[in-house]
Parts: sequence; C-alpha cells; structure tokens
Amino acid sequence: MVSGPSSLSLRTHTCGELNVDHVGKWVTLCGWVQYLRQDLFVILRDFSGLTQILVPQEESASKVKADLCDLTVESVIMVTGTVRKRPAGQENKMPTGEIEVLAENVEVFNVSKKLPFEIKEFVKKSESLRMQYRYLDLRSSRMQKNLRLRSQLVMKMREFLCNEHGFVDVETPTLFKRTPGGAKEFVVPSREPGLFYSLPQSPQQFKQLLMVAGVDRYFQIARCYRDEGSKPDRQPEFTQVDIEMSFVDQEGIRTLVESMLQHSWPAEKGSIQVPFQTMTYEEAMRDYGVDKPDTRFNMKLTDISDIFSSTQVEFLRSALDQPEGSIQAILVPCGAVRRKPSHEVHNGTLKSPLKKLLSASVTDVLIKKTQAQPGDLLLIAAGTLHSRPLLGSLRLQCAELLESHGRPVRDPLAFHFLWVVDFPLFLPKEDEPQELESAHHPFTAPLPEDTALLFTEPHKVRGQHYDLVLNGCEIGGGSIRIHRASEQLYVLKNILKEDPSQLTHLLEALDFGAPPHGGIALGLDRLVSIIVGAASIRDVIAFPKSFRGHDLMSRAPDTVSDKDLTPYHIYVKWPTKQGGEEK
Amino acid sequence: MVSGPSSLSLRTHTCGELNVDHVGKWVTLCGWVQYLRQDLFVILRDFSGLTQILVPQEESASKVKADLCDLTVESVIMVTGTVRKRPAGQENKMPTGEIEVLAENVEVFNVSKKLPFEIKEFVKKSESLRMQYRYLDLRSSRMQKNLRLRSQLVMKMREFLCNEHGFVDVETPTLFKRTPGGAKEFVVPSREPGLFYSLPQSPQQFKQLLMVAGVDRYFQIARCYRDEGSKPDRQPEFTQVDIEMSFVDQEGIRTLVESMLQHSWPAEKGSIQVPFQTMTYEEAMRDYGVDKPDTRFNMKLTDISDIFSSTQVEFLRSALDQPEGSIQAILVPCGAVRRKPSHEVHNGTLKSPLKKLLSASVTDVLIKKTQAQPGDLLLIAAGTLHSRPLLGSLRLQCAELLESHGRPVRDPLAFHFLWVVDFPLFLPKEDEPQELESAHHPFTAPLPEDTALLFTEPHKVRGQHYDLVLNGCEIGGGSIRIHRASEQLYVLKNILKEDPSQLTHLLEALDFGAPPHGGIALGLDRLVSIIVGAASIRDVIAFPKSFRGHDLMSRAPDTVSDKDLTPYHIYVKWPTKQGGEEK
Repeated sequence: MVSGPSSLSLRTHTCGELNVDHVGKWVTLCGWVQYLRQDLFVILRDFSGLTQILVPQEESASKVKADLCDLTVESVIMVTGTVRKRPAGQENKMPTGEIEVLAENVEVFNVSKKLPFEIKEFVKKSESLRMQYRYLDLRSSRMQKNLRLRSQLVMKMREFLCNEHGFVDVETPTLFKRTPGGAKEFVVPSREPGLFYSLPQSPQQFKQLLMVAGVDRYFQIARCYRDEGSKPDRQPEFTQVDIEMSFVDQEGIRTLVESMLQHSWPAEKGSIQVPFQTMTYEEAMRDYGVDKPDTRFNMKLTDISDIFSSTQVEFLRSALDQPEGSIQAILVPCGAVRRKPSHEVHNGTLKSPLKKLLSASVTDVLIKKTQAQPGDLLLIAAGTLHSRPLLGSLRLQCAELLESHGRPVRDPLAFHFLWVVDFPLFLPKEDEPQELESAHHPFTAPLPEDTALLFTEPHKVRGQHYDLVLNGCEIGGGSIRIHRASEQLYVLKNILKEDPSQLTHLLEALDFGAPPHGGIALGLDRLVSIIVGAASIRDVIAFPKSFRGHDLMSRAPDTVSDKDLTPYHIYVKWPTKQGGEEK
Repeated sequence: MVSGPSSLSLRTHTCGELNVDHVGKWVTLCGWVQYLRQDLFVILRDFSGLTQILVPQEESASKVKADLCDLTVESVIMVTGTVRKRPAGQENKMPTGEIEVLAENVEVFNVSKKLPFEIKEFVKKSESLRMQYRYLDLRSSRMQKNLRLRSQLVMKMREFLCNEHGFVDVETPTLFKRTPGGAKEFVVPSREPGLFYSLPQSPQQFKQLLMVAGVDRYFQIARCYRDEGSKPDRQPEFTQVDIEMSFVDQEGIRTLVESMLQHSWPAEKGSIQVPFQTMTYEEAMRDYGVDKPDTRFNMKLTDISDIFSSTQVEFLRSALDQPEGSIQAILVPCGAVRRKPSHEVHNGTLKSPLKKLLSASVTDVLIKKTQAQPGDLLLIAAGTLHSRPLLGSLRLQCAELLESHGRPVRDPLAFHFLWVVDFPLFLPKEDEPQELESAHHPFTAPLPEDTALLFTEPHKVRGQHYDLVLNGCEIGGGSIRIHRASEQLYVLKNILKEDPSQLTHLLEALDFGAPPHGGIALGLDRLVSIIVGAASIRDVIAFPKSFRGHDLMSRAPDTVSDKDLTPYHIYVKWPTKQGGEEK
C-alpha cells in the first residue's frame, strides 16, 4: 500500500510538494481557492502549501475556464492537469514557485459563501469571532502548524516512552468520585438520586493504583478537568502527559523527562541541552523571588541587609528589626529609562531621595555589591522575606518594560528548562496559618533525611517533589510518592487533619504490597504553546473554550429540558432577581 | 541513555529475562513475592515473569535469610545477588527455569497484609470482588497481558496513521452541548444557572468540522460517553479509534482500516488477510438474518418459499399470502441432538409432525435444496421477511448449543472480518412507522446513484455507510458524509423533521467550503477483547465500572454535599417513598 499524505486519496499530490522534478507529470490536486487572479490563475491551497493553477484560455477548454472563473474564494475543487515550468520571470520564492499546473479538468466540490473574514486576516480579528468560526480560523497556516506540531510532539513522546522504555499506555476513568477538597471538580449526576460522578483533575490516584497493580511503567496523554470559573488562559478541560514508574528515584524520573523532551523536541526549534539546571525551592525564592524563575535573564534578587545592618533610616531599621526582616535589591541594567521612579517602584536609583539618608560608604558598598553601572536602575525592597515575591514579580515587569522600550532582555528563541526541587512538603493554610496543608498533594513522600521531622516539626519537612519550569512557566510537576500505608495515614490524619475514609481504597492498596514509585505530569497545552511561541494555550487547542468556559461555535453549555434532567434526579435552582435563590 | 524496561530503574534486570547467558552476573531485581518455599527459595515476580531467588543458608548471611523468610506473599522487595545455574535436575520449563539468583542483599519495600485471595485465583472469584480489589486483580498475568497488548496495538495504529499516512492527532472537547436526540448523554452542570455541558457520544461533529478546517486527515483515540443505565457489557465511558479524511471515497477508508489492522495486529495472534470480505446489508439479512453476521460458520438462511408455493398447509399458506410473506430455513449439521424440538424452535425435523402435512415430493425437494443429511436439524420459520432476525439469532443459539455439546462450530482462534455496506439511509421509526429516522446518523451521505430518491422515495435510499464486523460483533462503523449544506439541511428538515437550529454551526460550516470527507470509528474496547478472547470488555479496561455504572473500588458515583452543588445551581430531587418525586 502506498503511504504518505496522498495515499488512498482522490489527489495524486499535495499542493505544497510540486517542483521542477514534476514538470510534465499529470497530477490531481484537491484544495481550497486561496485567490483568483484576472481569470488567468487560481491559487489552490491545502494544509501543505499553495500551487498556482493556470486557467486554460483556449476555446476548447471554455467549460474548465468558466468553472474556474466562477469560483469564490475558499471554494473547494479538484483540478487535474499537467505540471509546467513557469515562464521565465514569473517564478517566485514559494516552495512551488517554479511550476504551475495547467488545468485540464475541474470538479467543483463546494462553492463557498462569502466569508465573515479573509482567512489570513483571522488572527487579527477579535478572539470571539475567531472562536465562532473556528473551522475557518483553523485554516490559517499558523493554526495548521500548531496542531501538526502538537501531534508530532506527542507521537515522539509516545515512541520514546512506549517503544524505548517499556511504558504501558493505560486509559484511566474520567467518571470518578470527588476527591477530598476537590472543590474544583465538575460533577456529573448519575441515574441514582443524589449520586454524582466527578471529572478528575488528574489521574493521580489511578496511576498510583496501577503501580500497586504491578504495571511498572504507566503513561497516558490524559484529559483532565478543572472548574475554575473564568481564570485567564485556563481551560475547563486540558491535557497532561501523565507518567508513573515503579522502583525509581527522583533522579530517574528527571532523567526520563529530560530525555523524552530532547527526543521529541521539534527539529525546527533547535535542540535542547540536558541535564537541565536544578535549583532548590529555597534558592529560587532567594535569587528570583518565585518558585518558577525565568532563567533566560539575570536581574537576580540580592540580599543587601548587611549593608544596612547599622542603618538609622527609620523604615529600613524597622524592616530589619522584624523576624525575617530583610532588605533586597534587584539591579535593572540600563533600567533608568524613566525620569521618576514610577509608583509601583518601591525605591529609586541612587539619584533618589534615599541617597541623602545614606552615608557615602554605604552608597559605595551598595554600588559595589550590586555591580551597578551608570544608567542602571536599582530597585530596593525593605520588609520581611515574604516580600521577595513582590520583587520577583517586579523583576518580570521590568523585563517586559525594557522589552517594550526596544531593549531585548529575553531571547524569544531560547528555551530555558529548570528543575526546582526540595519544596516544603506542607504549607500553612492561608486562612488558618496554624494548620498545615499539602504544598502539592498529600501523596508526596518526604525527603528521606527529613522523614523523622514528620513527627516533630512537619512544617520543616521537605518533599520529594520536583517542578519543571520552562522560561518562567511551570510546565510540570511530580514527586516520589508515599508507598507505605502507615506513613500515608499519618500524613492524612495527623498532619492534614483530613478524613481518610475517602481514600480507603488507596490506603488499603498500599497495604497489599505497594512498590516504591513516583511520577510526573506535564501540562501539554502550555508546553506546546511555549514551543510555538503562542500567546495563549487557546492557540494550540483545536476547539478551546472562551474565558467564561463557553464554546462560541456550538454555544455550549446550553439549556437542558426538565424532562431530560428527570433521569438524573436534579433540578435547576434559578437565582431570583434579588440575587438570592428561589425555593 | 540506556533504553529498555530497566532503564532509570533501581533494578538491573526484570524478573523474566534472566537465562544461562547471565550466569555469574551481579544483578538487582525488584518485584513481588509470588511464593516462598521451605525457607529455601523465594519466587519473585514482576510484569515480565518469575525468577527463583535462592535464600542463603550460611551463618554469615543470617540477616538476609531472616529478611527473606519473614516475608509474606505479595510483599515487595529488591534483591541483589549473583545469577547461578540451577543444580542439575532442578531446572524447569519457565523462561528463567535454568537459573536462580543467590540473594546477597535484600531490601524490603513493603510487607503485604494477608490478601483477600491469591492473585492467581482472582479470575475465578466473583466479579464484584475482583473489581473491589482491582489493583490486585490487575497483577494476574492475564490482565497484565491484556493491558500491554492493548497499549501495543494502539501504538502501532498511531504509527501507521501518523507516521505513514500523514494523519494529525487532534484532541476534541468532551465538554460539549447536547446533540439533537442525545438522550443518552451525561449532563455536566456549569456555573451558570440552567446551562449544562454534555459529554459527547463521539467526536462526530468535531471531526467533520476539522475537515472543513482543512486538517485533511484526523485521528484520535477518543474517550466517548454514553449513559445507558445497566446494559450488559457496556461502559459509561469507552474508547474509539476515531478517523476522518478529506478527498476520499468509501474504498479509501476501507483500505485504510484494513491496512491499519493488518499493520497493528499482534504477532502472536497470527496474521490477517486483506481485503476483508464485503457483503451488502441486503445479503447479510438474506443469508444470516442479521446485519453483523458471524461468518466463521455456515448455517445460512435458505429461502424455501417456492417449495411451498402451492402448499395447502394452513399456517404456511397464510404466511405466504402476506405482503413480504416468506418461509425460511436453516440447516444445523448434526443438529438433531434433542429428542423433541425445544419450545423456541418454530419447527421440527422431517421426523416432525409437519411431515405428514407435506407430500413426498415436497419433502424431497426440501431435503435436496437444503442438502440435509441424516442427523441434521432443519429449522423452518414461516412469516414475513421480518422474521429473518429470529432465525438469525436462532442460528447463533444453535452454534452455542452445539459447542456446549462438544461439537466445534466456530474456530476460537479465527478472526473473520467483514464489511457490511449499502445500508438503508433511513428506517421507519419504531413508534411512528410512517416517519423516518437515520439508520446511523443524519450526516451520512446517500449512495450517488440513490441521491435522486431523497426527494421522491427516501425510504429506498441507501447510504454510503459501512460497518466493520469481526466474528459477528460490530467493531466499527463509518460513512462518507454529506458535504453540502443544502443537502444536509434537506435531510434534517424535510426527511427527519428535526429542528436544524441545534446544528447551525455545522450547516454554516458546510457553506464555507467543506471538502468531501468520510471516516470511521472503531470500538477499541470491543476489538481488544475479541483479540485476546476475553468474555467481557471489562477484561481489557484497567478500571471498568460495574453493570450499574459503579466503581466498586473507589465507590463512585458518590454523594455530594448541597454546599458543593450550590455553585452549579442544581439540587437533588429525592424520590418519595411512594415512588413519586417530592417538590
């Protein structure tokens, strides 16, 4: 059987592949009318490119000519004819720019109505219009490329995992039950009154159970669901590359992921170097004020507390006198682009009013320590260590600001991968800071050297968790899991104060011979969007939802009749006009 | 980077791969204790097989010995030691039966509690117990094989489609809107009062829209949903191999599927021959009384109406006098295993009471026409053509009955593929026979030669639909689709009398340059279950639901608090004790 993109097709070739080697060949092409030129040419397009079709002018071909000249833009036709070299001077730089096809037969499959927009203009149009006519938007070469690159990337990941490393692709259920604290899970009513399925946020429990089941190495390109209302650039359904291995350590998982990305990386995007840089959570917070640093540029946080150790400047003094009090700076090279420090800048340059409060020696040390040069901007924040994230986000804003002023900070073609490790296993709850919650999820194992602290100072325990960061975006996270029932029960019950009865099946499973295991999940939509340089994950998803979770093309979600809800034993609680709920 | 199933692992080898070539090697194995023998051996198991671990008996190794001998069955350990040839006479036929590993170090990862059952006994246990402890059930070699075969099969299909034929793997949404007549679609409440998503039964609309979008060739291993209550051997979520192509005809799709199955067929199951047999719907009904004939055995229906054309036997006469009256027979070779015709058999052998009503010449013709031999059973049904399905199902029951009496009818190792084509495009509605409904779905194109009948005698139109049947099970179906808006609108509005406003987006799309296109969907769960010879699709799904749609392990579906339902503006309508609904 013939292979390739024209196998089993009405066409003999695609519109992008013809060149001088085909001259004289009798070919059949199928595609869309990109444009028509003066009754002389039709430019025919398919996913692979464009070919110039020459309209025959002889009287004997008047039917073909009429058919072609009557076409509207985006009509779909099949053309048969002979490949010719273009007359000298008429070549262009398109891949098919040296040839044209003299039409001898035409079949018109469909005449297109007038489009709401030209295809090539679509990307400039409002997002809602693009979404309403998504099938037209997807015809753009950019969206075609994005979808194809995504498909190829996933294929190569699969080959790597399945063919080279013995992973088993296992599908796990998406009709599951609500997990403890699963407030962001969609519910799906069943036909039994009061019983609901839940659409899981990840196959976390199932993949661990597969390890207990002896599957050894599992992966799945898994559809996941999260009901987050209208968060920007989130989707109610998204896809993760979900991986779990038995008899493995952190190092093993990280090496696997590095090799997988290297193996599947699109050739046209250059190559990536492994191993990736690794940084502890503590280092990331110290140097970048964030747990997912963009390491494409410097401008790190510098602790300048010691310079001010004996300062008498009131606000600096009071900052340092607090527990965890600290003064931090970032140096923005050539950053003094504004006359006055803007309101979001906590501090100015050494031309700032602060200067007169500082002694010359302090100023000198400050300039020396931060290696500030003339024209640089020094941003200083005094507060506790908890103010580091402010400087971290200021650092990113400065990069954007500089770039908007035409000063390149981040290489748009660079891909900086980074592992962040040694996260705290638990964090204080935001609303009840004396209680602890899992920094990631309750199944993460502690670092072996910190395990004893579980029973004494759990807030000090670091977890065997690792995040994968690309250009400042978290694109994945995973951990080595707890594989002993007693430890898992202790964490759930004694530290997190959660009701373990919802996880009976998992706790039981750990008691029947669970192997040590760990894994990771990569956010596929985000990864692909960074690779292709898209502004939004919506540009790498065929049919995304709007901010508000709507499908603007089909108008989902939609109303459902009371009759159709009856089998599910639910009814709608309509809000009253007063904003309350009617009974 | 090292590849293979032990890459990046704590082990150096799997338990199934060691042989005499490894003698003398220092190896590390990880796995589960299959059983212990007299403090001398531990049989260690992983997904790949078993290795005999020799317990060291010297005093200096007393710690290792104690660790090993204290183990319970299904505990998880890591063993390091040297591969030795087994003493003469102690070899067995296991793949690793010539060697053993003398343990020098042991690490105990997990000591298993007493299991509810022995792993190897699981398949004999009640299904509900297997499902409750699915992670133990999956440790059986049979379930391990099924999951791995499924993963491999899908991988090869992907390689075929993506790498060899230019298909693009595109993920389509599962949070969609209810389709017209989608009574079997689960609903998912959104955060907007009264608006619901729906979990689609297939990506049908999306795959057609992708063709309109110029994707050219799409495939997806797609999760689909169908709420069918408690139908036997159905699952609320299932998986289909979903394919769509532009610029293709029936022949193209069928050849693609044949080649794909041939390419991905598991080597250990032999090879399959292409092209597959093709039969029209009419032939299938005529010869087998069913549209998905099991062609592994004969016993076809024979029309014997003409033999009785001048019969005066009352019930035969009245059958033939009806419109579409007919007398049909099937011959069951060596089928006369019962003394008396059973109650479900409409007629007996020629030893039957019918004989005395028939003339000798009729009897002779009957025996000649059906080629009946002594000992054969002849089943005769008189009625209309609509009684053929009864004989069709009787044919299958006879095959089962014969097999249960030890007479092989169907080769359990044979795979008979069959295309059934030329289905009617519309069928009379069951409850309103003067109205028509789609035999498959409203997007199927008519046969070109039948298109004119759409406007005159739509019930006579045959569709460009094809079903793929394997051993009497429908494992797939597809069609060439309508690609013109006007034709699609006519079918929806004038023939099916459906409200086309629910499909505005699709009708609009067909107006903006839709290419001719077609596709198919294969039921992956069913296909795999037939390949591995499983009695149920639950044996090829990692975590299936029970008949009633329950996950017996995690106990889904589950209750959800009123508070958690509040954001979705629904509440539960509890049935009253009287069986009504309370307000």
